[in-house]
Amino acid sequence: MKQDYPFSKNISLAFKNDPPGQWLLTLPEGCIRLSSGYPEPLLVPAVGLKTAAVRLLEEEQDLPLQYMGSPRILQLKEFIQKRLAERGVEVAKEELLVTSGACQGIDLIARILLDDQAVVALESPTYMEALEVFQNYTEHFMAIPVDEQGLDTEQFAEMLENGKRDGLKMPRILYTIPTSQNPTGTTLTAKRRKRLLELAEEFDFLILEDDAYGELGFTQRPRLLKAMDDNNRVLHIGSMSKVVAPGMRIGWVAGPEKLIKVLSWFKKDLNHPFAQSTMASFLESIDFDDHLKLLTDAYQAKSTAMIEALEQFMPPAVTWYVPEGGYFVWVKISGVDTAEMLSQALDAGVSYVPGKHFFLDQERCEYLRLSFSYADAEAIVRGIQKLAEVVAANVPEKTGQES
Amino acid sequence: MKQDYPFSKNISLAFKNDPPGQWLLTLPEGCIRLSSGYPEPLLVPAVGLKTAAVRLLEEEQDLPLQYMGSPRILQLKEFIQKRLAERGVEVAKEELLVTSGACQGIDLIARILLDDQAVVALESPTYMEALEVFQNYTEHFMAIPVDEQGLDTEQFAEMLENGKRDGLKMPRILYTIPTSQNPTGTTLTAKRRKRLLELAEEFDFLILEDDAYGELGFTQRPRLLKAMDDNNRVLHIGSMSKVVAPGMRIGWVAGPEKLIKVLSWFKKDLNHPFAQSTMASFLESIDFDDHLKLLTDAYQAKSTAMIEALEQFMPPAVTWYVPEGGYFVWVKISGVDTAEMLSQALDAGVSYVPGKHFFLDQERCEYLRLSFSYADAEAIVRGIQKLAEVVAANVPEKTGQES
Repeated sequence: MKQDYPFSKNISLAFKNDPPGQWLLTLPEGCIRLSSGYPEPLLVPAVGLKTAAVRLLEEEQDLPLQYMGSPRILQLKEFIQKRLAERGVEVAKEELLVTSGACQGIDLIARILLDDQAVVALESPTYMEALEVFQNYTEHFMAIPVDEQGLDTEQFAEMLENGKRDGLKMPRILYTIPTSQNPTGTTLTAKRRKRLLELAEEFDFLILEDDAYGELGFTQRPRLLKAMDDNNRVLHIGSMSKVVAPGMRIGWVAGPEKLIKVLSWFKKDLNHPFAQSTMASFLESIDFDDHLKLLTDAYQAKSTAMIEALEQFMPPAVTWYVPEGGYFVWVKISGVDTAEMLSQALDAGVSYVPGKHFFLDQERCEYLRLSFSYADAEAIVRGIQKLAEVVAANVPEKTGQES
Repeated sequence: MKQDYPFSKNISLAFKNDPPGQWLLTLPEGCIRLSSGYPEPLLVPAVGLKTAAVRLLEEEQDLPLQYMGSPRILQLKEFIQKRLAERGVEVAKEELLVTSGACQGIDLIARILLDDQAVVALESPTYMEALEVFQNYTEHFMAIPVDEQGLDTEQFAEMLENGKRDGLKMPRILYTIPTSQNPTGTTLTAKRRKRLLELAEEFDFLILEDDAYGELGFTQRPRLLKAMDDNNRVLHIGSMSKVVAPGMRIGWVAGPEKLIKVLSWFKKDLNHPFAQSTMASFLESIDFDDHLKLLTDAYQAKSTAMIEALEQFMPPAVTWYVPEGGYFVWVKISGVDTAEMLSQALDAGVSYVPGKHFFLDQERCEYLRLSFSYADAEAIVRGIQKLAEVVAANVPEKTGQES
């Protein structure tokens, strides 16, 4: 019996425990899920996708079930190109790689650009799956604070300047979710976007723009970093997970042809003809702008319901950012360890994600992430009410009780 | 404009040209495809999968379209466990990872076990995608000859012994397709299977058993290496690509829990709920043994048609292995560079894969791979007849003309 396997020296396994958020999979029956960053069940177009799959297989028979051959694989790519063009990003098909979700795109980019000497700059807090991906490659990070205007570019500039002055290694890439960030829900201002691109040029790093929520702005969609990029420094990552259905696993990377070509060499799950063609068949059957309008109206209403409930029920020690899009509200509860409080919330019938999972150090944390995407508005209000009771029992006395 | 990107020092890009076989995508209209390792269109269950997708989405609505939640994701895993158990391999669910096709399984294993110092042993010739994968990680290979009984274990033993004596680095893994090998169609004998496991123990390497064609034996299915493995040295890779449909991208890796756990950390395209659940829904609707019988009867008939046509039409300079299963016939044409001959074959209306693509060195090669899987029997016979004419015009005179 072999116990010690000859693992590659390129992978670090030391930090690995059970993945964060495993408990999300085993939520008690009836628990109001304010933890899940999933689309609301009724907003997932199950009937539309069923019709799309039927039409696809009746029209194309075996083509989308082979390795290649379905014309809809190309059609999906063209759809993505057209959407990007409408948002100011013109890419040739050689500058676009369809991936199995955004997360695979992040991993592929990390795979070709990072090694154990590379420094990754990222927002702190940030998307936990991305944290896990980058930690598979390196242990060198530059964690940039986030405020209500998104990533704090002035603090970032200072960190870069100080690092350069002190001879520290400079970041090779910056990973950012500029619009409706996960988990903070914040959106980077136009001014900061411009500044970020200047910093990339000045300090010679690439920007990984994760735009998973970029089409879910309630009232507007900020200009993409990729659309403002004159220096081929931005790799743009998109996804159908939040706007159609995550279970289809359709994402993409748009970037310089040279990088896209190398990414494609390392994408070894190949195309997913059935999923990609079904998606194309669905997209050809709808008006995508109408579809987005339906989603953003629904999510805006649920976001409003959540914010109003927070205002109504939460004690004064609790603060939050008001989102302008996306799925999330980032909540601060002064003096409370949100990881410790979780079991009480689950007992009360409501779930959230403790903030620590979104930080590199995963230490004691006063933040938590709420999602208004999955539960319906009525459940959201009930959930916040339950959570407020739990919070009230946990906030230190001097900061007050329920208002 | 940035021209030189900061690629990871862990990736070697030197060898990269256009991927072999790009020309396969642009075969002329009407060309008889003896190159394509795809299932025959009529043997791909398009109607069954359509019905399966409809039933799935009507019964489960959004569940298979979310990140997780469809009970059929687990059901697919249980199906694979049951099939493996019937073939002598009992694995717990912690010992099984569902992947996006076999190729992703190979890549994930390479990712966690290989670095640029690792030696990979493999059959020469072997599956070209696997060659590409391994070359993404290392340039150190031990190429083991194949004869009609599969990988030549005695030559392999000698190479290992000599290498050990000379202080050379020993292989970390052996990649093998023991049953109906791609491209040779050969099947490793029982005696050699036993010997291979002994060598793994003696020389301390892991075996990567790629069983993509293992259920497509015409008359019998040899015992799996994994079923004979008492030392946890075998990682078993399987796939639904050849027995249901490649476009679904469903494969798996079965192995020791410790390795499977690490593989799962590095699988960043996550689950594919829609594809996996549709596959489970399809599998629950059929008798899989009946389904396999239908496939193996059909492929055996087409294999026989191809072998008979080779016997009837080919000049004496041409020899081949008679397959006992799978998709392929490996053909040797003494004195002919099959890569050079390809354009003439395409002009004549028939395609094949030049043998050189299956070797590490990709040098001049007298072999070619024919596939009887895609074309129907009548087309196969016509295709071989056309190819025989091309071959006859190319074989050196002394080895004779058409018999």
